[in-house]
Amino acid sequence: MISHSANLKTQLAFLAVAMVFCQAAVRAEAPDAPWKSQGIIHVSSSPYAKLHSVPVRAVKMGEGFWAARMRTNVEQSIPSMLQLLEEHGVLDNFRRLVGRKNVLRQGPVYTDSDIYKWMEAVAFVLQSGDEPKLRATMDSLIDEVLAAQEPSGYLNTFYVDEKKSKRFAEMQGSHELYCLGHMLQAGIAYYRATGNRKLLDGGIKYANYLAENFGPKKRPALTGHPELEMALVELYRTTGERRYLDFAGYLLSGVERERLKLTDDALKYMFSGKPFTSRTEFEGHAVRAMYASSGATDYYLETGDPAYRQTLETLWRDMANRKMYITGGVGSRSEGEAFGEAYELPNAQAYTESCAAIANLMWNWRMLAASGEARFTDVIERALYNSINSGMSLDGKLYCYRNPLESTGEKIRNPWYDTTCCPPNLERTFAALPGYLYSTSAEGVYLHLYHNSTLDWHLEDGTGLKLNQETDYPWGDTITVVVSPATLTEFTVFLRIPGWTTHASVTVNGDPVSGEPKPGEYFPIRRRWNAGDTIHLVLDMTPRLMVANSRVRENVGRVAVERGPLVYCLEQPDQSGVGSIFDVSLAVGREPGREFTAEFKPDLLGGIMTLRHKGIVTTKPLADEPLYQTFGRPLRRAGREVDLTFIPYYAWANREPTAMEVWVPLQAE
Amino acid sequence: MISHSANLKTQLAFLAVAMVFCQAAVRAEAPDAPWKSQGIIHVSSSPYAKLHSVPVRAVKMGEGFWAARMRTNVEQSIPSMLQLLEEHGVLDNFRRLVGRKNVLRQGPVYTDSDIYKWMEAVAFVLQSGDEPKLRATMDSLIDEVLAAQEPSGYLNTFYVDEKKSKRFAEMQGSHELYCLGHMLQAGIAYYRATGNRKLLDGGIKYANYLAENFGPKKRPALTGHPELEMALVELYRTTGERRYLDFAGYLLSGVERERLKLTDDALKYMFSGKPFTSRTEFEGHAVRAMYASSGATDYYLETGDPAYRQTLETLWRDMANRKMYITGGVGSRSEGEAFGEAYELPNAQAYTESCAAIANLMWNWRMLAASGEARFTDVIERALYNSINSGMSLDGKLYCYRNPLESTGEKIRNPWYDTTCCPPNLERTFAALPGYLYSTSAEGVYLHLYHNSTLDWHLEDGTGLKLNQETDYPWGDTITVVVSPATLTEFTVFLRIPGWTTHASVTVNGDPVSGEPKPGEYFPIRRRWNAGDTIHLVLDMTPRLMVANSRVRENVGRVAVERGPLVYCLEQPDQSGVGSIFDVSLAVGREPGREFTAEFKPDLLGGIMTLRHKGIVTTKPLADEPLYQTFGRPLRRAGREVDLTFIPYYAWANREPTAMEVWVPLQAE
Repeated sequence: MISHSANLKTQLAFLAVAMVFCQAAVRAEAPDAPWKSQGIIHVSSSPYAKLHSVPVRAVKMGEGFWAARMRTNVEQSIPSMLQLLEEHGVLDNFRRLVGRKNVLRQGPVYTDSDIYKWMEAVAFVLQSGDEPKLRATMDSLIDEVLAAQEPSGYLNTFYVDEKKSKRFAEMQGSHELYCLGHMLQAGIAYYRATGNRKLLDGGIKYANYLAENFGPKKRPALTGHPELEMALVELYRTTGERRYLDFAGYLLSGVERERLKLTDDALKYMFSGKPFTSRTEFEGHAVRAMYASSGATDYYLETGDPAYRQTLETLWRDMANRKMYITGGVGSRSEGEAFGEAYELPNAQAYTESCAAIANLMWNWRMLAASGEARFTDVIERALYNSINSGMSLDGKLYCYRNPLESTGEKIRNPWYDTTCCPPNLERTFAALPGYLYSTSAEGVYLHLYHNSTLDWHLEDGTGLKLNQETDYPWGDTITVVVSPATLTEFTVFLRIPGWTTHASVTVNGDPVSGEPKPGEYFPIRRRWNAGDTIHLVLDMTPRLMVANSRVRENVGRVAVERGPLVYCLEQPDQSGVGSIFDVSLAVGREPGREFTAEFKPDLLGGIMTLRHKGIVTTKPLADEPLYQTFGRPLRRAGREVDLTFIPYYAWANREPTAMEVWVPLQAE
Repeated sequence: MISHSANLKTQLAFLAVAMVFCQAAVRAEAPDAPWKSQGIIHVSSSPYAKLHSVPVRAVKMGEGFWAARMRTNVEQSIPSMLQLLEEHGVLDNFRRLVGRKNVLRQGPVYTDSDIYKWMEAVAFVLQSGDEPKLRATMDSLIDEVLAAQEPSGYLNTFYVDEKKSKRFAEMQGSHELYCLGHMLQAGIAYYRATGNRKLLDGGIKYANYLAENFGPKKRPALTGHPELEMALVELYRTTGERRYLDFAGYLLSGVERERLKLTDDALKYMFSGKPFTSRTEFEGHAVRAMYASSGATDYYLETGDPAYRQTLETLWRDMANRKMYITGGVGSRSEGEAFGEAYELPNAQAYTESCAAIANLMWNWRMLAASGEARFTDVIERALYNSINSGMSLDGKLYCYRNPLESTGEKIRNPWYDTTCCPPNLERTFAALPGYLYSTSAEGVYLHLYHNSTLDWHLEDGTGLKLNQETDYPWGDTITVVVSPATLTEFTVFLRIPGWTTHASVTVNGDPVSGEPKPGEYFPIRRRWNAGDTIHLVLDMTPRLMVANSRVRENVGRVAVERGPLVYCLEQPDQSGVGSIFDVSLAVGREPGREFTAEFKPDLLGGIMTLRHKGIVTTKPLADEPLYQTFGRPLRRAGREVDLTFIPYYAWANREPTAMEVWVPLQAE
């Protein structure tokens, strides 16, 4: 544990730095409970953050799309996952070290991180409101985990017994630093939930051990799986201790290549071990690369190093313009769970690990904080509603590791994976959701995601602010926001106009607002706001046919269907009279997109908006056609009209495993 | 070495069996030199072979397409490969075992097979004619190899010293049986080249050791990498010893699953370990699967087991209709060097190992022998001219391990691979080529592949027969065959009408022949042939635009270009005024295929027929377009006309590594 005086001293130093760099951040925290005001990332004092997170507890979710998911998460996913973690010995791995269990260690090298991620999920639940039973479970688990911590601070259940000599000697694959990162994130989240520092202090003890023994003139350190970088920056934000930020900088600096004899292949795979600022494109393991980028953005938010900003921008464009699935997923290759080449985005073979989509959200949340630019929020929303949301079954008990965009019907959802990184990662993400809806800036308040909710917080000048959001989003097209500052105040409400809409209209108290809302930007409404002022935002939710860049090899001649933030798909059970969805093409007439019939089906897959459209099914199944034949006219193959029904992609594979397709061949009139 | 009397006895037994089963095979061998009459596979006495190989030495290649490749193979590839094998210690691995070199063993577990494959290549060269220097090298190498053979017969340079205890204990990965298979094939080929049995007898000694110690009531055996199956059947054909055929049957029977505790994944990956006749589709490692199928076909040719025939037919359809590249390559996935799902045929990511295309040829050669059906020859030709031929650089010194159908410009050709299976495999294939041109059957003679050549052999009734073939194939469309039996004889000349042609015309001595030549079939010309009778065959060589089944995900909206047996591609250096070939589409008018201009360029890439066609290049590079956008009209994107030049696929990557594409987006008028 760090001493109180050292802590206070650094907090003062930190405040001084913050005051120099950050003109806007006047803190309005209760000095006795700073943890209560800290958001998912605590960037209120980060000198290079334009936007500042609001605490999860400041946002109450109303009924709706995400509220249902969050309830399932708390009631089904989190308890069943703890049971599975117990059954697979993840906790016994700790207990055996203090003699409480006489068992062999179980599971792969990184199991500690799974329980930490689960703990972080619970911590986020508790940030939304107390759940005494969950809290008691947490306290007891924290005791069990920390009981295994060694006096030095070291804590890892794999590198014990005969493997003790290998500690920090196999950093490329050991996941020791990765596990520490998740321990810190869980400790910080629980501190922010309850003020209880116990787990946090345990993490700090381990982090101090690391900082004291590793570094340029000490032993070399490496994040074989990046993750610790962002945890250390968050620890710096939480404690004010600069050494953690510096150590994150050291890890990102990639100076240990020589000492650790890292090969080119390893540098590529790990997305670590060479200077982060020397990266020019995404490659290697997708989750590693996205966590590294998240940590680098955190580092930038504190340091403002322009080389980081430039690298992050280059990488972001590489991803958004060349390597991201339309679902917001990333990671094209199963081999190495890796990014592919530019435009290498196979659908059925897509790896698109749930963790990678989550990491994409986490990274873009940090990029948004740094810039206030809505292009990052567009990616957040795309990933969240599609590639992340698909990762958990509707009943909350099955998970996707991969989230492909096409399937011939393999079993994709399972309750447990030997590498069970995704399930608790999904749980912590859904539990944290309220914290992603709003931000503040010096100018006012940002609305990022639309959902029934109330924000009870304050402007950055300290003026109390309540926002009440009512909407049926993502099914409905209208969002009503009642703005209630504590006193009549001039500030800006930044409404996100999603990049996917073609048109948006905005009124305040029924009157038009000057300026044109532009898709893909925040629409600023600056005025003196009175309590009860009401914004109406209407988005064009006409279904859209999307085409991919022709360089995306599998999507030539195909379209994807979107409505609002949701990507749609064809799943076999919904297509009556169609033997195989792979024999189907979409028959598009003169008004692409407007030829859909939208119908909300409350009893289907938890309640979804279905989209019907005319299609053509081949007379002869394609499976009976030769593999190759001479091209001839007519181009169009014989077929008959059918009525196709699309469902939101996230809802696929919640019935029997069957065929599914996002990118559907197009047959234009 | 087996005793002379035993050998004679079994040969007699063998002859008796042959006379019962095989009504047609009246041998016309010089009794003192049976080896001289044996072809690539010696199926003259195989009861279920409809076609019978002719010896390699019976075919003299004239100048032309393959003659040039074969000359490069002998003059460049084979000598430089021996040097590389020496440099990488492959031969020292043998020498060290007899104290001739004091070095550590080098290379992966299967290096012995590389020298055996190289030896087989040399043996095939020597089957075409003596090359005293090569022969002397062979004899010396054989001595060095056999010096390392243990008295028991065991010979493997990996399982020695401290690894000796692991012999036959790691059969899933040990490649011991695989190496023995290649040793046998080399020994047989050298015996057929020279009558020298030394290497063959070494192989027999090892095979006997195996047969005596392994089997149902002995120790369990498994081909972790199938290959030995076909070698053992060939050994049976060569020696007449039934035990080798039976052992092949045992390996294919997959009865050792329990004893060897083989997992489902292993059975899938190895394509071995469960009954071959229980297979219903290709999966797992492509080369393993194709070698297993080759061995199973060999086994069928001797036993006629209908379950094998049915499985082979099912597998063949699975491959030809769902899993083969247009180049004749197979193996879609880099991960596991494996087959993918049906229609999973990515172009840039294609694994398509050279060895897999070679195995495809070997398998189809056996299926052809069993059936006499031209669909198998179509695959042989497709694989040979394209996915195999691309495997070796034009100068003969660089090799492709993978043969993808699209590339952004990675370096694909290398002189050496740590796993250097492909280079000597290519060498043995090219050296054996003359043996693939002709076969005989009870009814007459088959012409499979067209090339300047003479066949000096005999009909199966013993009548001497000379064929003289003149053609400029694959560039020219005309084949002239002068048929010269020793005496006026009635028999059938079976002319292969390639499946790729739309029309073929045939005359004999200038007169039309009754019946219609059908593409994809053998056209039988039965008559009483006089010496000098002349067949003219003209094939329609108009370039073709090929489309893939729409279920092939990457090829929707794309076409491939073929002319004759050659698949074409676009390579960047040939396209003037085009920034990136990936911005290009093929502009097809009213007469698809007829809009090409063919021009032979003798100085380009060793002399090739180029094909020019109108294309459209996007005004704005696709790389500057967004990854996803809303579909709108017009469908056609802005572009300008360009003149595209296609080259044969096999010739790609013989200049600087640049972009290449086989399947080109189509823009139809």
